[in-house]
Amino acid sequence: MNKSRLEAFSDGVLAIVITIMVLELRVPEESSWGALRDVAPTFLTYLLSFVYVGIYWNNHHHMLQLASKVNGAVLWANLHLLFWLSLLPFTTSWMDETGFDPVPTALYGIDLLLAAVAYFVLQRTLINGQGSDGPLAQAVGRDWKGKLSPVLYLAGILASFWVPYVGVAAFVVAALIWLVPDRRVERFVAEHGTSGRG
Amino acid sequence: MNKSRLEAFSDGVLAIVITIMVLELRVPEESSWGALRDVAPTFLTYLLSFVYVGIYWNNHHHMLQLASKVNGAVLWANLHLLFWLSLLPFTTSWMDETGFDPVPTALYGIDLLLAAVAYFVLQRTLINGQGSDGPLAQAVGRDWKGKLSPVLYLAGILASFWVPYVGVAAFVVAALIWLVPDRRVERFVAEHGTSGRG
Amino acid sequence: MNKSRLEAFSDGVLAIVITIMVLELRVPEESSWGALRDVAPTFLTYLLSFVYVGIYWNNHHHMLQLASKVNGAVLWANLHLLFWLSLLPFTTSWMDETGFDPVPTALYGIDLLLAAVAYFVLQRTLINGQGSDGPLAQAVGRDWKGKLSPVLYLAGILASFWVPYVGVAAFVVAALIWLVPDRRVERFVAEHGTSGRG
Amino acid sequence: MNKSRLEAFSDGVLAIVITIMVLELRVPEESSWGALRDVAPTFLTYLLSFVYVGIYWNNHHHMLQLASKVNGAVLWANLHLLFWLSLLPFTTSWMDETGFDPVPTALYGIDLLLAAVAYFVLQRTLINGQGSDGPLAQAVGRDWKGKLSPVLYLAGILASFWVPYVGVAAFVVAALIWLVPDRRVERFVAEHGTSGRG
Repeated sequence: MNKSRLEAFSDGVLAIVITIMVLELRVPEESSWGALRDVAPTFLTYLLSFVYVGIYWNNHHHMLQLASKVNGAVLWANLHLLFWLSLLPFTTSWMDETGFDPVPTALYGIDLLLAAVAYFVLQRTLINGQGSDGPLAQAVGRDWKGKLSPVLYLAGILASFWVPYVGVAAFVVAALIWLVPDRRVERFVAEHGTSGRG
Repeated sequence: MNKSRLEAFSDGVLAIVITIMVLELRVPEESSWGALRDVAPTFLTYLLSFVYVGIYWNNHHHMLQLASKVNGAVLWANLHLLFWLSLLPFTTSWMDETGFDPVPTALYGIDLLLAAVAYFVLQRTLINGQGSDGPLAQAVGRDWKGKLSPVLYLAGILASFWVPYVGVAAFVVAALIWLVPDRRVERFVAEHGTSGRG
Repeated sequence: MNKSRLEAFSDGVLAIVITIMVLELRVPEESSWGALRDVAPTFLTYLLSFVYVGIYWNNHHHMLQLASKVNGAVLWANLHLLFWLSLLPFTTSWMDETGFDPVPTALYGIDLLLAAVAYFVLQRTLINGQGSDGPLAQAVGRDWKGKLSPVLYLAGILASFWVPYVGVAAFVVAALIWLVPDRRVERFVAEHGTSGRG
Repeated sequence: MNKSRLEAFSDGVLAIVITIMVLELRVPEESSWGALRDVAPTFLTYLLSFVYVGIYWNNHHHMLQLASKVNGAVLWANLHLLFWLSLLPFTTSWMDETGFDPVPTALYGIDLLLAAVAYFVLQRTLINGQGSDGPLAQAVGRDWKGKLSPVLYLAGILASFWVPYVGVAAFVVAALIWLVPDRRVERFVAEHGTSGRG
């Protein structure tokens, strides 16, 4: 089955998620820099979620490059990932509007964690269709980022109940780790081509 | 006529429908797990409608795989389907905000029923363009899911006037039936290729 | 220059326009059929605008089929069309919320008229790039629909100041004329192929 | 790496940004031309931002035509551009709702300036991947528009603190300069083909 519609639908959902979050940025009633400063926490929270959706889009983009065909299981694993990402505007808003209270901050991390799990499941589903010596399995390799970030999310969730800003810091660090571009797929493609096997 | 724009436009509409529903999830004012529990019914209703849009997207994806060409009648049959699906955010909200009252719950089912009818009409329109021995007609076959789900919607609509939760249960069961991936098209493609005829 | 991005961007804008209009459908507070009946005018207005966006998408789809290349002038003529269509949610809302008062109903017609003019300009711009014996010029032919509908919009605008419902009736009739599928392009493609010239 | 998904995702985000701004157009409560006149400043502000998104979409379209491959750095440079453009609905609203007060008008210009910088960075990143004798570097050439518009934005930002309408005038002039279609890429393609090198 063709993967182009899976990509197009995912692009559509992620483009909407990334854009509707900006609707949460309430226009200040006053016209001063001070009024703008009050929006700053919302702005930074928006930036963090924007970066996360960007990370998922980039990683999704890279991963699908090495996927040759998709089946029904892949379609649903992908929708599962999109579901948790579609909740980001909600979890972002709650965390922001309550001023980074413990429970909302933890929920933000839980959403990130569930999206990471869904991404892992999608990756596994794609690899299963190729075999463990397929191009995706080789490109993913040891996947230390994919293993480290859930740990950071979990640490952040727990820390949120203690000092929420420490929790947020963990989520920021996890984002920064992913911001360093993931060259595994690019390197693999450079060495083997998109359909190459070792 | 080329089918790629039909797919792209449908992907766009479905991506927006599936994503704007999350805007209905009102951010709680309190920061407790209890406040979150109050959102739970809305969350589950959102999940149900998300799954339904996902089902339609998956089925649409499979069906169009076996469609070779589209004409004006197909374009309108497709817009007809998108119309009923575009009303899902409205019917979902009304059912949810009234706490699953009889009329709104029945209306949710009526929307699902009309979408199912529209999907059937689209399928027929595509098959008519291929002839009854075309790949889509063969892949669809006896289509027991397509015949069972309208019966479930109808039963759910009627049950809504008696005990709305029984109606909702019928809609959940119909969704679960579709969640089991539909392998007819995949099997057909595996056996005959996308353009094969028996 | 490639036309696929022009199509994709237009598909995106039209998909959003057609979908955000449903956000105007206010969820009734009561749970009765009577409460739903109060939404009926909004629903029918939404249906009319949905059909209009559908008509434009269909015609745009057909027209671009016969366009071989696009240049900067085409990109802007296309954005000009999308601009007037993007105002439909606004003009639809105003007409609906004021209960079909004269000025808002006339403005709805003015928006339709300006979109029709923009469509005509886009068509001319595409034909200019092909020459008057190009496939699009031949397929468009005498274009009686394209000439009749602006007259109907104009009549509807004027009638709105007298009896607004007569104005709305004119807009409905113009939509119905377009709903009859436009077979000119399909016939042309069947006879000559997409790039054929007489 | 394939550039089609980068284009599709950008098309999606820009289509949403350009369309959700119209949601800011508040439907007047009265039904008179006078009520509509009160919406006129918002309408014109919407038009200005619509044109700016259109300009970016057009330029992005042209630039990507001459890009052969994209890597991780290009994906992030592109997301960086989309970020500043996604803030346009916010900065547009603030400027409009405060009646063109100094700080909000300056912020609108700052957003335009940051988007221009992001566009420049994206262009540089793409050129770096091709070498300074690549097709994009040659097509871009001296790029007087790209150099003049940041100066106009900066002048407009400063002028906003003095007479905001002068600031807005600078942003309008910068848009008009871009509205004149940029024929550099078209000319280059006509002379050399999309992959040609002098």
